[in-house]
Amino acid sequence: MKTQNIRTLSLILSILCYLLVGAAVFDALESDSESSRKRALEQKLHELKQKYGFTEEDYGDVERVVLQSEPHRAGRQWKFGGSFYFAITVITTIGYGHAAPRTDAGKAFCMFYAVLGIPLTLVMFQSLGERINTAVRYLLRRAKQGLGLRKTEVSMGNMVLVGLLLCMGTLCVGAAAFSHFEDWTFFNAYYYCFVTLTTIGFGDFVALQKTNALQKRPPYVAFSFMYILVGLTVIGAFLNLVVLRFLTVNTEEPAVCDTHVSPQLLTQYTVCVVKKGVLQEMCVNVPGKRLGYLH
Amino acid sequence: MKTQNIRTLSLILSILCYLLVGAAVFDALESDSESSRKRALEQKLHELKQKYGFTEEDYGDVERVVLQSEPHRAGRQWKFGGSFYFAITVITTIGYGHAAPRTDAGKAFCMFYAVLGIPLTLVMFQSLGERINTAVRYLLRRAKQGLGLRKTEVSMGNMVLVGLLLCMGTLCVGAAAFSHFEDWTFFNAYYYCFVTLTTIGFGDFVALQKTNALQKRPPYVAFSFMYILVGLTVIGAFLNLVVLRFLTVNTEEPAVCDTHVSPQLLTQYTVCVVKKGVLQEMCVNVPGKRLGYLH
Repeated sequence: MKTQNIRTLSLILSILCYLLVGAAVFDALESDSESSRKRALEQKLHELKQKYGFTEEDYGDVERVVLQSEPHRAGRQWKFGGSFYFAITVITTIGYGHAAPRTDAGKAFCMFYAVLGIPLTLVMFQSLGERINTAVRYLLRRAKQGLGLRKTEVSMGNMVLVGLLLCMGTLCVGAAAFSHFEDWTFFNAYYYCFVTLTTIGFGDFVALQKTNALQKRPPYVAFSFMYILVGLTVIGAFLNLVVLRFLTVNTEEPAVCDTHVSPQLLTQYTVCVVKKGVLQEMCVNVPGKRLGYLH
Repeated sequence: MKTQNIRTLSLILSILCYLLVGAAVFDALESDSESSRKRALEQKLHELKQKYGFTEEDYGDVERVVLQSEPHRAGRQWKFGGSFYFAITVITTIGYGHAAPRTDAGKAFCMFYAVLGIPLTLVMFQSLGERINTAVRYLLRRAKQGLGLRKTEVSMGNMVLVGLLLCMGTLCVGAAAFSHFEDWTFFNAYYYCFVTLTTIGFGDFVALQKTNALQKRPPYVAFSFMYILVGLTVIGAFLNLVVLRFLTVNTEEPAVCDTHVSPQLLTQYTVCVVKKGVLQEMCVNVPGKRLGYLH
């Protein structure tokens, strides 16, 4: 079987195993707590029904009104500020769901908006991330020169370490800020920042949903929007550094590399040959060895 | 200013404009409907409070119980099937939020699970997408040969057209299936599939949340999981084809290309030189012209 197919098959099997393991752990961690919450709620509900003399039908009415009112408790979601917040959650694919379009026109526009916006945002964050990595690389080299180190070259290890520290720093700053503004515990605020910046966006914790913040606290609104966009840039830079090189656009089997490039000119270089915009082959030239394939 | 910086700056400005336009349109489309829903609900709430003689405090009690019971209405979310569903929404970053971990251990494991799972899933879908594109390219070429066409080469235009048709087809199949199983309108089911496969995942529509489906309808559960994973593969293949080439890992200014490769061997090829895992330069060789830079 071809190397590419084996690689893909191993990845699929890994993901399936990873899902099975994840499901087992989440089941173990959450299932009991869910059951006990459910029992407690049923008990409370029973008491309430007795206290107010609800029939099943009455309770259905009350339930409907409460659930439909829930999205309005946090204040207007679709004024300009809220709509801007929503637009951010669409093109970044965070999608908290604290607000979701209710009209058909809104849903249709949302789909159209995402089709253009998501790829544009992806390219923007990667482009900006790459610029940030270049700047970090330059600053590290200058710092090493400034410290008078003999080896001033910036290794991949250096960059990954700085990237990790920046990511952790971003999460901690966010956790401190949101735990202050939203009155969450530090752990919950950290979890909120993590879920937001990975673009998972469960919506169990959503910033700007208390005390009418979207209308009444413009500086906090501006901070939250900036935090999300800057945070996604930092994570994007890290992904650009670490993950992007594994995303292949190769759609042909690699040909023999050294028929196309002259190896003696390429010591310590990796060479990729791209034909009509498609990566054809990638070879690495280790000094003293023949050209070999990277994948 | 350097080309890369100009490109990045234009992208940032485009995104900001795009967000402003989006916010204005969403405001226009949703704001009125939100206001009228809010008024109607306040009216209904007033009637309910009178009917049952709720005090504000009583109503607060009822509200709390109803909102806390909501996640339990759809049946157990954290048995193995539900946990598997949740694990899928984490590593794909869909994150509906129909279920979210409530225990601290669950939240902590969720973060750990995402840190490893999201990059792995990204690489898997891109790798699988690339294999699919290779297969489609091969099938198209064979089809053209079979039809006796003179030009049997498969162009980028051909591939994009097939990719678009496959994406639309996937969405339509999903819309038909989920509108049948979930009793949604075709439009709402289409919107659900779109929001899921772009990984936005608002959670306003979530499959498998009715009639205890997670426990009682294993074939439908299996179909839903398969649909999400296969659908993400189709979208991933399209992104691999169209967007991935714009995600650059270049972190150095391009050097002079033809000092490294011998141009006479490279007719109609693009050559990138990668040093220590980082793309250094990318040149295109148009027959009859000198090597020139792609960016």
